[in-house]
Amino acid sequence: MTATPIPELAKRAKAASRTLATASTAIKNEALLAAADLLEARTSTVLEANAKDVESAREAGIAEGLIDRLRLDEGRVKAMASGLRQVATLPDPVGEVVDGWVRPNGLKISRVRVPLGVVAIIYESRPNVTSDAAGLCLKSGNAAFLRGSSTAINSNMAIASVLREAVSRVGLPEDSIVLVDDVSREAAVEFMQQPDYVDCLIPRGGHSLIQTILDNATVPYVIDGDGNCHVYVDAAADLDMAEEILLNAKTQRPSVCNAAESLVVHSSVAEEFLPRVDRFLDNVELVGDERARKSIPRAGVATEEDFGTEFLDMKMSIKVVDSLDEAIEHVNETGTGHSESIITGDYRAAERFLSEVDAAAVLQNASTRFVDGEEFGFGAEIGISTQKLHARGPMGLQQLTTAKYIVRGDGQVR
Amino acid sequence: MTATPIPELAKRAKAASRTLATASTAIKNEALLAAADLLEARTSTVLEANAKDVESAREAGIAEGLIDRLRLDEGRVKAMASGLRQVATLPDPVGEVVDGWVRPNGLKISRVRVPLGVVAIIYESRPNVTSDAAGLCLKSGNAAFLRGSSTAINSNMAIASVLREAVSRVGLPEDSIVLVDDVSREAAVEFMQQPDYVDCLIPRGGHSLIQTILDNATVPYVIDGDGNCHVYVDAAADLDMAEEILLNAKTQRPSVCNAAESLVVHSSVAEEFLPRVDRFLDNVELVGDERARKSIPRAGVATEEDFGTEFLDMKMSIKVVDSLDEAIEHVNETGTGHSESIITGDYRAAERFLSEVDAAAVLQNASTRFVDGEEFGFGAEIGISTQKLHARGPMGLQQLTTAKYIVRGDGQVR
Repeated sequence: MTATPIPELAKRAKAASRTLATASTAIKNEALLAAADLLEARTSTVLEANAKDVESAREAGIAEGLIDRLRLDEGRVKAMASGLRQVATLPDPVGEVVDGWVRPNGLKISRVRVPLGVVAIIYESRPNVTSDAAGLCLKSGNAAFLRGSSTAINSNMAIASVLREAVSRVGLPEDSIVLVDDVSREAAVEFMQQPDYVDCLIPRGGHSLIQTILDNATVPYVIDGDGNCHVYVDAAADLDMAEEILLNAKTQRPSVCNAAESLVVHSSVAEEFLPRVDRFLDNVELVGDERARKSIPRAGVATEEDFGTEFLDMKMSIKVVDSLDEAIEHVNETGTGHSESIITGDYRAAERFLSEVDAAAVLQNASTRFVDGEEFGFGAEIGISTQKLHARGPMGLQQLTTAKYIVRGDGQVR
Repeated sequence: MTATPIPELAKRAKAASRTLATASTAIKNEALLAAADLLEARTSTVLEANAKDVESAREAGIAEGLIDRLRLDEGRVKAMASGLRQVATLPDPVGEVVDGWVRPNGLKISRVRVPLGVVAIIYESRPNVTSDAAGLCLKSGNAAFLRGSSTAINSNMAIASVLREAVSRVGLPEDSIVLVDDVSREAAVEFMQQPDYVDCLIPRGGHSLIQTILDNATVPYVIDGDGNCHVYVDAAADLDMAEEILLNAKTQRPSVCNAAESLVVHSSVAEEFLPRVDRFLDNVELVGDERARKSIPRAGVATEEDFGTEFLDMKMSIKVVDSLDEAIEHVNETGTGHSESIITGDYRAAERFLSEVDAAAVLQNASTRFVDGEEFGFGAEIGISTQKLHARGPMGLQQLTTAKYIVRGDGQVR
């Protein structure tokens, strides 16, 4: 089997995007529900394809954890289907009038949300991303141009083929979903270099994928950056609340980007709070500055690198500061602009932290773990952006749109 | 004089941006007015510096038209000052609450406009851009990191020095405005490669500058693309209105990006309308397809390249189409996504054109020349984006901001 050239595939997605851009919410929802039903009906086909991938992965000696992420079963196929049904229930962002006004000369101007066009998504092993990403793109009126990992190629092809059949059954172009069948590294790079056809590239994967995009992409992209998130326990913090929040932010799911990585404590409460930290984070490896280590003898020495590291693990750095200013400066210096939380009952301290800390999300008296599309109420999430342009913070369907000015006149000239 | 290293300058701008981000509207306006006053008071200093640039340009044999763009006089300095005063009267976009809601768990989420941080602007000969760009950045709470052309270096340094003095007089950091003093091409490239310090790069210049950015920039940017704008005269057009609009769109200022470059005419009105076009665009060079040339014998043959070209001159391409579909397809194929206008009294034709044409601005019964920050009522314009991400269409102060989620809780955990 020869792989189809990337530009040819991208061009097909672009052509389909023109039709999708003006498709009604009703037909897009119909397509999502049809895709969900067909996925369930074709479960055995999808599982057979997946079995091939799992076998190849095993032969290639891939680690068991990764194979588990790759493996599908009946429950996981059902979950994909119900994900698509859930997207069908969300409000359609397309057509929303963001703003509108009339000029003195009578021109009526409105700013309306429209689809981006072709959204390219490049992702790592989990094959469910094929279905999740296609569903979000479809609902927001975008053609989905997908590139999964080589290990999941059979699963991804099977899922994409089901989705394509379902959308074409309801009368939408099958190229609304286009999956790249060339799994070479060269194809991945070529995938990022289709500025004539691709309107936005979104990666779902780790560091090396992001770096490949930074180095090679010639299309516009929105990327998830690191989340070196801080919890700052202020002089006026309720320490019981601080304990609950810190425990949650650090340990509820340490491997995700909105988990806390660093604790900053005001010196006036450090001696009281840090011994408690020592106890309630007893299964967390702690590294701290000199003053932190006085209160927590088991803590290791925190290097500058530690303060700048997203551990994504049961490890946390601790810094003691003498003022709010010092706390804000430390967070801005070492943070990655993801999610930063202050625990305080002091109005002025909170306002200053919320305003002066430069991050996608700033929180008062709440866990950083809430910075998430579902938790924000978006119903679905395509990622969390740490960029400042286009989308910042959790991205839902709205962030898969752009805006267009519509100007209605009656013969106006300048 | 040794030039200051670019990263050192960028770092200074970043430091200043932290202060600017939380500066009140009152103090920012005070700084703008102080800068306007000081510019007028220092007119002779600025003009002396400018005279050096003009002399060097003349010695270098630079064309008279470019020298005119470079030259300042008392009137032009006054115009810069009144530009700054005008920006002081505009509403401050910073702090605007774009959206806000309460989650079932009681978390209060709001999305608030905040400055981007450091806005880098690279521009060509006109020295007034130094003042205009600095004013817009200041009002929107951003540090301005500026790189003008080598021909205007003395003028730019003099203007920047006045602005820096004025902002520091009212208590804002002088590095709110940082001008690069190294005018080498290497420095221009280095200027585009400061991702640690620069939040957004905006070019103001022609093709080759844009290309340099596409090839070299490692910071996020928003660029003005070409404007190959069409006017489509539909079967149901009022031909008198079409004449007025086309005349305006093509000839009022042919050198700008929102001027019309191509006329598309429905075949049912072509025989009546095109002979009129021949007369009212008598000083415009016309090139057309076969049917257009039947009605306008003087028109040359339009090549495919002509249909794809932004002439920026008294030249226009003409295509006759048999249907609205053909018109929309032609506009989407050959357009650059800037501004596209339909002239029609037919509701369905208008709705289809406005919805199916993929451009930053689509117009009905109005000249493409209205697609402009001032004409849209933004009060000031930093450019017109043909990108789909971040900003699309005319960019005012709002487009110099990003958003931040502020989450207020009372101890919530997941």
